[in-house]
Amino acid sequence: MSRSIVAAMTAYTLELREAQIKLNQNESPFDFPRQLKSRVLEKMAERDWNRYPDFESTALRTAIAKAFALAPENILVGNGSNELLAAAIGAFVGPGTPVVFPRPTFALYEKLVTIAGGLPIPIEFDPHSGLLPLEEMLAAIAEHENSVAIVCSPNNPTGGVLPEGGLDALLESGAMVLLDQAYGDFDAAGVGGAPHERLVRFRTFSKAWGLAALRIGWCASTAENCREIRKVKLPYSLNVISSAIAEAALEHPAIRDRNVARIVAERDRVFAAMQQIPQITVFPSRANFIAFRTEKPLFDVLWAKGILIRDFSKFLRVSIGTPEQNDAFLAALKEVV
Amino acid sequence: MSRSIVAAMTAYTLELREAQIKLNQNESPFDFPRQLKSRVLEKMAERDWNRYPDFESTALRTAIAKAFALAPENILVGNGSNELLAAAIGAFVGPGTPVVFPRPTFALYEKLVTIAGGLPIPIEFDPHSGLLPLEEMLAAIAEHENSVAIVCSPNNPTGGVLPEGGLDALLESGAMVLLDQAYGDFDAAGVGGAPHERLVRFRTFSKAWGLAALRIGWCASTAENCREIRKVKLPYSLNVISSAIAEAALEHPAIRDRNVARIVAERDRVFAAMQQIPQITVFPSRANFIAFRTEKPLFDVLWAKGILIRDFSKFLRVSIGTPEQNDAFLAALKEVV
Repeated sequence: MSRSIVAAMTAYTLELREAQIKLNQNESPFDFPRQLKSRVLEKMAERDWNRYPDFESTALRTAIAKAFALAPENILVGNGSNELLAAAIGAFVGPGTPVVFPRPTFALYEKLVTIAGGLPIPIEFDPHSGLLPLEEMLAAIAEHENSVAIVCSPNNPTGGVLPEGGLDALLESGAMVLLDQAYGDFDAAGVGGAPHERLVRFRTFSKAWGLAALRIGWCASTAENCREIRKVKLPYSLNVISSAIAEAALEHPAIRDRNVARIVAERDRVFAAMQQIPQITVFPSRANFIAFRTEKPLFDVLWAKGILIRDFSKFLRVSIGTPEQNDAFLAALKEVV
Repeated sequence: MSRSIVAAMTAYTLELREAQIKLNQNESPFDFPRQLKSRVLEKMAERDWNRYPDFESTALRTAIAKAFALAPENILVGNGSNELLAAAIGAFVGPGTPVVFPRPTFALYEKLVTIAGGLPIPIEFDPHSGLLPLEEMLAAIAEHENSVAIVCSPNNPTGGVLPEGGLDALLESGAMVLLDQAYGDFDAAGVGGAPHERLVRFRTFSKAWGLAALRIGWCASTAENCREIRKVKLPYSLNVISSAIAEAALEHPAIRDRNVARIVAERDRVFAAMQQIPQITVFPSRANFIAFRTEKPLFDVLWAKGILIRDFSKFLRVSIGTPEQNDAFLAALKEVV
């Protein structure tokens, strides 16, 4: 009974396995500070729960704008950055719209483009170099009129980034660029920049802030683009508690900075250690995970040892955990290969 | 730069006005019990916030299934029932799909159908009778192949319902029926029933439960329909705190039952009082609000008196508040007309 396009789709899935060491979802290994949790929740118990959230999400949009030197009208907030990405695809991708994106990348993009009736143009690339296939993307954009480009940089699940100057080249190509910076906090090259009429950036509190449970994301663009995306986005999509937690988080940027510093240091340490293992090929990563290739059937053997990573069939991905978790992963890896 | 279909749309808006007595959003006037708030939030402070919500939302889906004599595979939960409605429209409405719905109704349906590229077929009706235009809907469904019907019963913003046997007639018509029961708790005729392959029911915790701030909704249908809708729905769309609050709520159905009893009694009292005022025409309502028509320019005058209701240009809508709020509304109304 569903649309043929939906009936033909597979669901976005996650293999549900329990494990003592969970390195499969690119979550932060560091929880939000307990004291700050309690402070926000106590305040939230005082708030009326029978009343809808602020229609404009003014407090959080203003706080984000201040933190990133933007204006509130350049910001939309939502129920995870996925929601805003879906709304942006709804705003910019219609039946037949060509949408260029690297592959492998976050599987949700292609699903959302398919649902919107767009024409997915995946650019297959070898993640080995740590760079996204900019030239091939530009060529595909040049071949199609009014195309949209979706780029995740650093890219999930491979860890690579756009080459230097890559974003400028994409913007000059004339494509509408949806830039998923969910992992941008871990990329020393930085994120940010002035709003551009052909660019929407997507950010999240799920990774560097350690707030995946609360589902908080935002996007930044010109006021006009934000107005158009908002037409597609559902109203009241961010609940009042998640919003208050994000506002509290932004008052304590040291939480994020400390998480990022620890994760980046661990990522570089794990990467160097993995490079020493001849049976595996490691892909350079600027994110909070490392993708790698091996001939060995590693996934199940690691899981049997209590370590859950992610299997993308052509390669594996391990999220960066605490130093102890990473040591356990490295020890198991060396033992197995 | 956005799709022409989106550029031509107006945004879903809410006139933002402050008022002492807020009767404009069909919110419950009764907050969630303070002790229960604190109990859930204390538990939530212990939960890891750096970890994603359960991919399957098993605990809440199981609790809802138990409360409504369904199986968990018949249930999807989401970020407000709006999210599930949008996903269902994404699953069942493609370019050109005829979508029949009464008008006036909740404005979001037509926007979502338009975004999906569907063909909106609004059935204009006079809300005066308190009944939705079943015969006209059936005629429109018969005129179009593979149509989808969207019905809100009790209907927002008019308060009317499907005539007796109306749902069966819609299901027999062959249309896929999306039945929004956001206000179903206030309708003594009741909701519920076995899953049907051409029916998806949408419910919310925002109204009768007094949990609008938390954005919690669910839908019920056959396992197959739920699987299809889930392909379109974003993963992890319900945050862990809202989910825990809904689970706690379901353990205390007396909260909802008491809210509903008080609101229904007040609705009937306010309705009877309004009927006594010759200058206004009141529409029968089975919801937690009353729509009415008057020649007088009431909206701004009431607002100047600290009472905010909702203006739909052809009629007005007042949400049922506490007895004191309703008295203030009735007194102001009598004074003005």
